[in-house]
Amino acid sequence: MIASVRLRNNFFGMQIAFRLEDLIEIVAPKEVRGSTEVLVEGISALSSADVSDLSFLGNPKYKAEVVTSKAAVILVPPGFEGDPADGQCFLLVENPSAALALICARIERSLWPRPAAGIHPSAVVDSSAQISESATIGPLCVVEAGSEIGDHTHLQAQVFVGRDARIGADCWLAPQVYLATECSVGNRVRIHAGTVIGSDGFGYEFADGHHAKVPQVGGVTIDDDVEIGANVTIDRARFSQTQIGRGTKIDNLVQIAHNVRVGQHCLLCAQVGISGSTTLEDFVVLGGQSGVGGHITLAQGTKLGGGAALTSNTKPGEFLNGSPAMPYMLERRIVVLQRRLPDLFKQVCSLKETLAELKKTSAS
Amino acid sequence: MIASVRLRNNFFGMQIAFRLEDLIEIVAPKEVRGSTEVLVEGISALSSADVSDLSFLGNPKYKAEVVTSKAAVILVPPGFEGDPADGQCFLLVENPSAALALICARIERSLWPRPAAGIHPSAVVDSSAQISESATIGPLCVVEAGSEIGDHTHLQAQVFVGRDARIGADCWLAPQVYLATECSVGNRVRIHAGTVIGSDGFGYEFADGHHAKVPQVGGVTIDDDVEIGANVTIDRARFSQTQIGRGTKIDNLVQIAHNVRVGQHCLLCAQVGISGSTTLEDFVVLGGQSGVGGHITLAQGTKLGGGAALTSNTKPGEFLNGSPAMPYMLERRIVVLQRRLPDLFKQVCSLKETLAELKKTSAS
Amino acid sequence: MIASVRLRNNFFGMQIAFRLEDLIEIVAPKEVRGSTEVLVEGISALSSADVSDLSFLGNPKYKAEVVTSKAAVILVPPGFEGDPADGQCFLLVENPSAALALICARIERSLWPRPAAGIHPSAVVDSSAQISESATIGPLCVVEAGSEIGDHTHLQAQVFVGRDARIGADCWLAPQVYLATECSVGNRVRIHAGTVIGSDGFGYEFADGHHAKVPQVGGVTIDDDVEIGANVTIDRARFSQTQIGRGTKIDNLVQIAHNVRVGQHCLLCAQVGISGSTTLEDFVVLGGQSGVGGHITLAQGTKLGGGAALTSNTKPGEFLNGSPAMPYMLERRIVVLQRRLPDLFKQVCSLKETLAELKKTSAS
Repeated sequence: MIASVRLRNNFFGMQIAFRLEDLIEIVAPKEVRGSTEVLVEGISALSSADVSDLSFLGNPKYKAEVVTSKAAVILVPPGFEGDPADGQCFLLVENPSAALALICARIERSLWPRPAAGIHPSAVVDSSAQISESATIGPLCVVEAGSEIGDHTHLQAQVFVGRDARIGADCWLAPQVYLATECSVGNRVRIHAGTVIGSDGFGYEFADGHHAKVPQVGGVTIDDDVEIGANVTIDRARFSQTQIGRGTKIDNLVQIAHNVRVGQHCLLCAQVGISGSTTLEDFVVLGGQSGVGGHITLAQGTKLGGGAALTSNTKPGEFLNGSPAMPYMLERRIVVLQRRLPDLFKQVCSLKETLAELKKTSAS
Repeated sequence: MIASVRLRNNFFGMQIAFRLEDLIEIVAPKEVRGSTEVLVEGISALSSADVSDLSFLGNPKYKAEVVTSKAAVILVPPGFEGDPADGQCFLLVENPSAALALICARIERSLWPRPAAGIHPSAVVDSSAQISESATIGPLCVVEAGSEIGDHTHLQAQVFVGRDARIGADCWLAPQVYLATECSVGNRVRIHAGTVIGSDGFGYEFADGHHAKVPQVGGVTIDDDVEIGANVTIDRARFSQTQIGRGTKIDNLVQIAHNVRVGQHCLLCAQVGISGSTTLEDFVVLGGQSGVGGHITLAQGTKLGGGAALTSNTKPGEFLNGSPAMPYMLERRIVVLQRRLPDLFKQVCSLKETLAELKKTSAS
Repeated sequence: MIASVRLRNNFFGMQIAFRLEDLIEIVAPKEVRGSTEVLVEGISALSSADVSDLSFLGNPKYKAEVVTSKAAVILVPPGFEGDPADGQCFLLVENPSAALALICARIERSLWPRPAAGIHPSAVVDSSAQISESATIGPLCVVEAGSEIGDHTHLQAQVFVGRDARIGADCWLAPQVYLATECSVGNRVRIHAGTVIGSDGFGYEFADGHHAKVPQVGGVTIDDDVEIGANVTIDRARFSQTQIGRGTKIDNLVQIAHNVRVGQHCLLCAQVGISGSTTLEDFVVLGGQSGVGGHITLAQGTKLGGGAALTSNTKPGEFLNGSPAMPYMLERRIVVLQRRLPDLFKQVCSLKETLAELKKTSAS
């Protein structure tokens, strides 16, 4: 399923390699089974791993592949039975996927080092903007008057920060992100390329044969530890704030309308659309391309399947699917029955005939 | 539902406050009931309003909240019965929502003053471009040869205007908008961040085992008083023009394919997609995430529900819903019946059994 | 359906006109019927063509319009019967649409000439980037360290090319395209405005009450002859590569998640979403707004209708439709039967009554 990444790679033009000791230090295994002298230079799926690769058992259904895998080092769960081959090492860790993430984070830091602090000479920064000395303002960014940029925050390139906008510490804004005037971003927030935060909400009053604009004078508030994908749009409130709660993660091309309040630790998959003034409580999960109507509340832990369309309030922990959305089990059942509609129509037809005959018989 | 906006706000770094006289001047009420000396410094929903807030009765169902609201000034409809508390004032206006919009517009003008005319030194503007002296070309914009920018039009920052493109008067283009070569925009048009106008239509001829590109040498024409949201895409025509009619409003992440003609005063909600060569007559409304097939005509006043999928012509004023789209009332009825499918299958099963028994009885 | 393009046009500020000999040279007709001295200055549909226009019979159903068309020159298929009017010329060509594309390509080259090679002084280009001498780096582009830009490739303006990214020869990247670090683009690739290639995949591990980021350290590889629309998002792999195969064409606002592999010569229409780790084999066609689940394989030649939602593997050449997707013919049938549900419920109700009566009768 997954191919491999070569860490020692001419294309990357750099060398990253892990000794067994390095890996042990990073993942802190409960048990080390076997040993290897090999320098780990790649990560790969069990079946495609090479002798200088690290691999991992993330899903029990691939258990049989551990035995035949050539990987030098394999991350396996605590109860794992079986022994490594010669010159191979198993690291038993609580959660192999999480352990792999720790290693990837190390690679990420090596490949993508923190940039030097300072303002690139090509950036256009208003003299009244308050920019931390440890922040990095990359080339061709625009930072308007009265805005604030926190410690170690990195605007990569071509970013726009509007008047009186605020960004906290340790944030990363990718190229071509737009943060509108008076919007506010917390700490450790990551925003991917092309995302628009604080465009006007879509509000008009129809009068005299045309749509008169309702001014949108509120803002957008993004809390700490939020990550937002690429080409997302989050509209500013009519008044007050459109809010994204702490720890929420938003995928690419998502639309969040004005006055929406998204709770903490929600997951919004790609191409989701949320209509105006709707509230998502904490831990809500919306599947890809799903749509949520306006002025409703999704209770804590609500899950919506991919492509589902929801227009009414939900109960805590509900799992809904389909368009219009209904409880998951009911939707699955109806999907099956729909495919049997041709048969049902035939049955009813045949019933009618039988009944007509029977009627004739009983009349005679 | 709606929280509040603080107008006197350290965050905003500025003070806006309205005296009762100011508000009366802006909304020109039919009747003033009561009076207040308080400076209005915020706008809030009735239930959450503070003693220095303005509020409004936009929807009759909140009528009871007027009595208990602490707001200093409340906008109410003409026939409203009831008296303000001490130091409180009711302004009776034809349309409280529209009156509020007037006040918000005043705030908007104060918060976001018109920029000074001129070309920012970091912008890259071709010497053959014709730019009005009253226009503002913000930092890091690119304006190519032969283009025209009208009076008081504002390209905020990092906007791209292609060769021979034209923009009329009093327009506002947000950061990172792209207007392609030879495309044309009317007067008083607002385009939000990240929107792409004039990318190539999606047209290929399949031959010799691959898709050969059909050149897209037409343009895009946007008429007066159009507003376009963020990260929208409008493709240029194969030849001739893709057209957006006067007064039409387009929400975020909408896709409009080549050769589409959108009439006047239409509303296209977020994430709508319109396929090539389709025509929308005037006053068409498309709900969020709805999709419209190619080469069809939506008659004047057609309404399409959220998420609906339409592939055939419509009649004037039709309201369609569902996927595939059908008349709204029929769709609502079918949705209800679908949920009763499990029961219907059971009924038919039981009918068959009863009938079989009856047949046996009558045969014996 | 299609209006017309004026080639000699004050707006365009330039003159392009074709003599009959020019057109014959471009389309190399099998037969020339009639003749004209007129300079062809526009392209138009048969019914709306003017005496100085070129037109074409692309679809047999418009055959009758050829006789009454005023066009100076008409492209018609080989077997076409009928003679041109005086001063009119028919060019008989194998495929009139393809012949028209050749003429449009000639117009395109005239309207949009190749830019001069070189790096615009406002671009920010790292000294370690390897840029071909024949490449054009337009205004306000950012090209980071270690990247490579091939021969005759054109970054139009405000493009971002990340560290160690590679772009082949003869590519065109429209304004505000973002190509992330270590991503790779082949030859003759066209990428429209606002598109984001190489943003992080959407991957988190839920632990300790929050979503911990899974680092995305892979890349994106785009093969030769790919065209990508506007405001598209293609995520980098977790490790290894997200891949787009040779000759594939992608429309606007499409989302391609991490680790997806798209085969050769696929067509992905606007607003399509493909979930993580899914494979599209060659010649797959996805209709507009359709969605594809994660970790599945779409076999060669699979077709998915507009708005369809697919969550399981397909067989070669399958045509699927609906949400959830099912074989096209079955889906069409079910759609028809669904509309007859109100009638079916009535029938079953009436059957029950008849049966109850019959039972009573037979019991008595």
